[in-house]
Amino acid sequence: VKMTHAARRDGAHTIAITNDTASPLANEADRVLDIHAGPERSVAATKTFVTSAVAGLALYADWAGDDDLRAALLYLPAQLKLAAEIDWPELRESIGQRPSLFTTGRGPAWAISGEAALKFKETCQLHAESYSSAEILHGPISIVDAGFPVLSLAAGDAAEPGLVDVADRIAEMGAQVFVTSEMCRKARRIDYVRTGHPLTDPLALIVSFYSMVERLALDRGVDPDIPRHLRKVTETV
Amino acid sequence: VKMTHAARRDGAHTIAITNDTASPLANEADRVLDIHAGPERSVAATKTFVTSAVAGLALYADWAGDDDLRAALLYLPAQLKLAAEIDWPELRESIGQRPSLFTTGRGPAWAISGEAALKFKETCQLHAESYSSAEILHGPISIVDAGFPVLSLAAGDAAEPGLVDVADRIAEMGAQVFVTSEMCRKARRIDYVRTGHPLTDPLALIVSFYSMVERLALDRGVDPDIPRHLRKVTETV
Repeated sequence: VKMTHAARRDGAHTIAITNDTASPLANEADRVLDIHAGPERSVAATKTFVTSAVAGLALYADWAGDDDLRAALLYLPAQLKLAAEIDWPELRESIGQRPSLFTTGRGPAWAISGEAALKFKETCQLHAESYSSAEILHGPISIVDAGFPVLSLAAGDAAEPGLVDVADRIAEMGAQVFVTSEMCRKARRIDYVRTGHPLTDPLALIVSFYSMVERLALDRGVDPDIPRHLRKVTETV
Repeated sequence: VKMTHAARRDGAHTIAITNDTASPLANEADRVLDIHAGPERSVAATKTFVTSAVAGLALYADWAGDDDLRAALLYLPAQLKLAAEIDWPELRESIGQRPSLFTTGRGPAWAISGEAALKFKETCQLHAESYSSAEILHGPISIVDAGFPVLSLAAGDAAEPGLVDVADRIAEMGAQVFVTSEMCRKARRIDYVRTGHPLTDPLALIVSFYSMVERLALDRGVDPDIPRHLRKVTETV
């Protein structure tokens, strides 16, 4: 809210993406985009993550005049419904009670990889760390031992072949690598929905992830709606 | 080398910071800063990390006309010698055979926190992840259980009080938090050398860290000079 106030004061045009059009943030901004997520009851926010990204993409599609993206957004609700039915039981079994794993992505899917790692921590008390597939072979790979789980989130974009190549290399080291792509040779393919546009594909991936991670938390005996040490609002120090 | 070539072609003035003045990078750049580190025999580079940062700071001190920084750099070799004698046995004991920990920092010390986490991975096969102390209470804190080790790297700068406050809060949750500062109440103070300037303090911290992490690797039965899955040069895909 303070940053929006400062930006507006200095002459910027401010747009609030919010789930509450009566919120202090909405009151502070020049324009308001309502994400219509409905009340977010969970501490580990999921609906608001997806709908905020959709609002941002809709804004971008109009701004850039990207008709392919507009079309993909039109069909996205049906695609996300399909994505939510995906569960990845083979990944859940591989993780089991292990303490640690990596997620990888590249480009927009790298952002999704970061969200996945955070939700593994919040809902499963599992030390998941996200890496760009361009970086993971430089050092981080040293902690990968036999059976170490890796979730590689590939979208249908220009980064897919490179990301899958890295996933295959990590699988060759003995890790259990799961990837949302047909291109893999050594890593294991897991189910995914393609949405017709590289910028909406990552949203389908995270929706499938959310379905899986809720079940994984329950498998591990953790209540995913009550993350340890967290409340709904965290003050930034 | 390719990026330097492209930058120079497009009109940039390029400066190579290198340990080998006959290297392809040195040949490609307009100017060369020799870091004089001597042959780097270890896969997990440490001398080149510190001396490259010193070269960058020396350049910055002249550019900005910062006499305090120039003076701190003059005394830095002696300060780093003291820093190398620090070992943090209480941190090594706390980590033991645990699989996972956090490092934290803020500002320039956050960069050092990232380097520390990477070296924990490379030399000890330990899943260390670096967070800004401004971010760690937003979600990542959920994986902290009783006895979880946290290394908080504080420099003598404007971020020190905030960083130590977060360290104390994490200690109150039952974690074993170690911090290089006198300001802590709940976290445990570990030895450190202050260098007379906030930009050189982080280099003394990482030198103390390197001394500790080599011993920790040996404690854990890992040879720190032969990181698993790594060679000296990693190709970026």
